[in-house]
Amino acid sequence: MKKPPPLPSLERLCGIYGLLDSLPESDRGRVSSRELGRAIGQTAETVRKDIAHMKADIVSAGGYDPAELKGAIASYLGLRETRRACIVGLGRLGQAILRYPGFQDAGIEICAGFDRDTNKLELLISPIPLLPSHRIAEYVRAEKISLGIIAVPPDQAQITADRLAEGGIRGIVNFTVPVSVPETVSIRHVSVLDELRILAALTDGTA
Amino acid sequence: MKKPPPLPSLERLCGIYGLLDSLPESDRGRVSSRELGRAIGQTAETVRKDIAHMKADIVSAGGYDPAELKGAIASYLGLRETRRACIVGLGRLGQAILRYPGFQDAGIEICAGFDRDTNKLELLISPIPLLPSHRIAEYVRAEKISLGIIAVPPDQAQITADRLAEGGIRGIVNFTVPVSVPETVSIRHVSVLDELRILAALTDGTA
Repeated sequence: MKKPPPLPSLERLCGIYGLLDSLPESDRGRVSSRELGRAIGQTAETVRKDIAHMKADIVSAGGYDPAELKGAIASYLGLRETRRACIVGLGRLGQAILRYPGFQDAGIEICAGFDRDTNKLELLISPIPLLPSHRIAEYVRAEKISLGIIAVPPDQAQITADRLAEGGIRGIVNFTVPVSVPETVSIRHVSVLDELRILAALTDGTA
Repeated sequence: MKKPPPLPSLERLCGIYGLLDSLPESDRGRVSSRELGRAIGQTAETVRKDIAHMKADIVSAGGYDPAELKGAIASYLGLRETRRACIVGLGRLGQAILRYPGFQDAGIEICAGFDRDTNKLELLISPIPLLPSHRIAEYVRAEKISLGIIAVPPDQAQITADRLAEGGIRGIVNFTVPVSVPETVSIRHVSVLDELRILAALTDGTA
């Protein structure tokens, strides 16, 4: 990919990709922009524009072929190359991500976990290396890890981001409090509280 | 709040609210729209517009007072009223959310957890009621729970959404595969894979 599309369009295309990826094998008939839009909370028109914007050579008559559309998005967004990622913070959330089976054929390889608690590192059983947090920068650099996931308690959030940045990380998914990173690092902040507040604002309290 | 702002603005305001909420007490000097923007990945201009759009009576000269700004956002978005929420799926992710201490003064009260595995329900220790999944609709309705969090395995995602909707839920944060819900239900899909793919598209693989 030369230049990524505007962020909202990129987010929608990744949403569509994830959706196509999650379709059961048995349910792979052609899918319309209206169906895609409904599933990701967008209009059919927006979905059509995002797909047209890729200028991919795909047939849209009678809906899209899921495999073809998925392939076109992967090519357009540069998702074909497997990216190496690590997780910092091996509490419940970090362990849930570490053991998530969906990364396997998703173009993401989780190749290290870090925690500052060395006792915890000894107790956890994992097929991938688990290392103490002070080794983040060195290991990320040596192993060419380009993406990091932060799942540490709030008081360790900033130092974790600093260590990842020092190791040359390119992107961070941050599940804890907001952190500051150099301009060379892209960051995505994920917060269940923010999401619940968005829902609270969108709805009233009557159940 | 009469009418919520457009979704992107609402998302940014909730991001700012979460950011202000996470500031340590010791770090509560005035904060500029540029600082807020940098922390949530937006321009100062966008942040200024979002705040101005609330038409709140707040002083912006020399930056915003964090407490004042937080209060204005809470009023504007209707976040002052505590909302009752439940979690479905008590695996690692569900348990991480269940035990997250940040809900307490965040206007969200987690008041039930559900899992289909009754053995698990007996083993977990929790100050809030934990119930079998077949009771979701009945309990959500009886307890006036308006928000739900789905953290179940993919094959249980749709039935969980159906049960929540049947109970009259108003909003869902969905951590699993996309599900369909009636138009009366707002849904927010959260996926670490989608976030990693967005980062992969935004950056190249050189670490």
